[in-house]
Amino acid sequence: MDEIKNIRLILEYDGTAYHGWQRQKNGISIQEALEDNLRIMLGEPVSVIGSGRTDAGVHALHQVCNFKAASDIPPEALRRGMNSLLKDDIFILRAEYVPEGFHSRYSAGSKSYEYRIWNRREKNLFLRHYSWHVHESLEITGMGECLSLLTGRHDFSSFKSAGSGNLNPVREMMRAEVSANEEGIVTFVFEADGFLRHMVRNIVGTVVDVGRGRRSIDEFREIFHSLDRKKAGIKAPPQGLFLTMVNY
Amino acid sequence: MDEIKNIRLILEYDGTAYHGWQRQKNGISIQEALEDNLRIMLGEPVSVIGSGRTDAGVHALHQVCNFKAASDIPPEALRRGMNSLLKDDIFILRAEYVPEGFHSRYSAGSKSYEYRIWNRREKNLFLRHYSWHVHESLEITGMGECLSLLTGRHDFSSFKSAGSGNLNPVREMMRAEVSANEEGIVTFVFEADGFLRHMVRNIVGTVVDVGRGRRSIDEFREIFHSLDRKKAGIKAPPQGLFLTMVNY
Repeated sequence: MDEIKNIRLILEYDGTAYHGWQRQKNGISIQEALEDNLRIMLGEPVSVIGSGRTDAGVHALHQVCNFKAASDIPPEALRRGMNSLLKDDIFILRAEYVPEGFHSRYSAGSKSYEYRIWNRREKNLFLRHYSWHVHESLEITGMGECLSLLTGRHDFSSFKSAGSGNLNPVREMMRAEVSANEEGIVTFVFEADGFLRHMVRNIVGTVVDVGRGRRSIDEFREIFHSLDRKKAGIKAPPQGLFLTMVNY
Repeated sequence: MDEIKNIRLILEYDGTAYHGWQRQKNGISIQEALEDNLRIMLGEPVSVIGSGRTDAGVHALHQVCNFKAASDIPPEALRRGMNSLLKDDIFILRAEYVPEGFHSRYSAGSKSYEYRIWNRREKNLFLRHYSWHVHESLEITGMGECLSLLTGRHDFSSFKSAGSGNLNPVREMMRAEVSANEEGIVTFVFEADGFLRHMVRNIVGTVVDVGRGRRSIDEFREIFHSLDRKKAGIKAPPQGLFLTMVNY
């Protein structure tokens, strides 16, 4: 009965109202909302391990986390209970037992992100929390050429955030694409074995400079090869970013 | 300089955070947000007249209102100033002088509404404020047949709200249609020379009963012809409703 179980949650969330994934003092985080309600459900305090952090305002369609608990409550009952306790901007899609050694972050294989831009001159009130508004018309083909330079195994130092420390900046990028639909939405898709802090937002900010004609594709290539963060463009704002998959 | 001008605003808003259009004591309304900020901009109190009320949680892609003021501030400057004062869930698309006799409500010709349903089994976190979640698969053709009964000049008493009073319940419906897209969104479109209180939401609630097989098209026809509100289905929730046009 007191055997410790390892439980994995797959969840989605609207990050608008949260100060990111990680528990902190400034305001409520996704991790805190989960831990506080798990404590109510389980009657014991637990530490939730996420597959990775998301920044304030960033969303997730598929985030993965796990925690260890002694409680015997079946995972599906836990899921339902949690969904009724949590606010309507976090929803647990699945809860299940996983082997003792499973760790959401260390066990993760690859991750996927989407970044969405609202690309019309007029603002879109209803997408204000779910897209970056770029009003200049974006040239999709040129942006796609930039992204194709990123696939493969590379040093992504040019796109790491200032506070990344001296983490190994080499990552394997499996997918880096951009497309536009007729409703005015431009969507970037990235898949890699890992992402440096702010890497997607820094890439998007720099590629968009090419899309709106402020930089050439050659300049983008130079920035990428320079390994110098100071050469890259602005960091795209958080509300356009969605964590869409974590593979194990 | 002190000549009174009649100024018309065309605006859009996300109604999620508001207690509807009309000023009231329970909480902040769209009208109140406009009047409070117009007072700051103009230096004089004004009364804003809307084309009609929207309920708490209902949105507008195109709402029209007008007010009279002595101020000489040019409408475009007023528009920009208001947009910087207002929160990001209200946006003024246009501001312009109109003839003295223009009245947003009395002068209105026809109005259009859209009602959006999220029609997949799983909930959609990101549309929770912008759609009604109906998880049973909806039969679009049958709902379309119901709606085709509504076009033309009819007594809509079956779909008026209890608190409508003894207003003339006859309205001319120019358009009543439904369609589904591949992303799981079912959209109703209505255009009429006027709508009774809660009329769109009562129609949608009843038509959806046909769509999910709980009522037949014949039953819908009987309800419509009975002129008895108590026979109709539930009132669809507010967050799926959008005021999309007011014609003059």
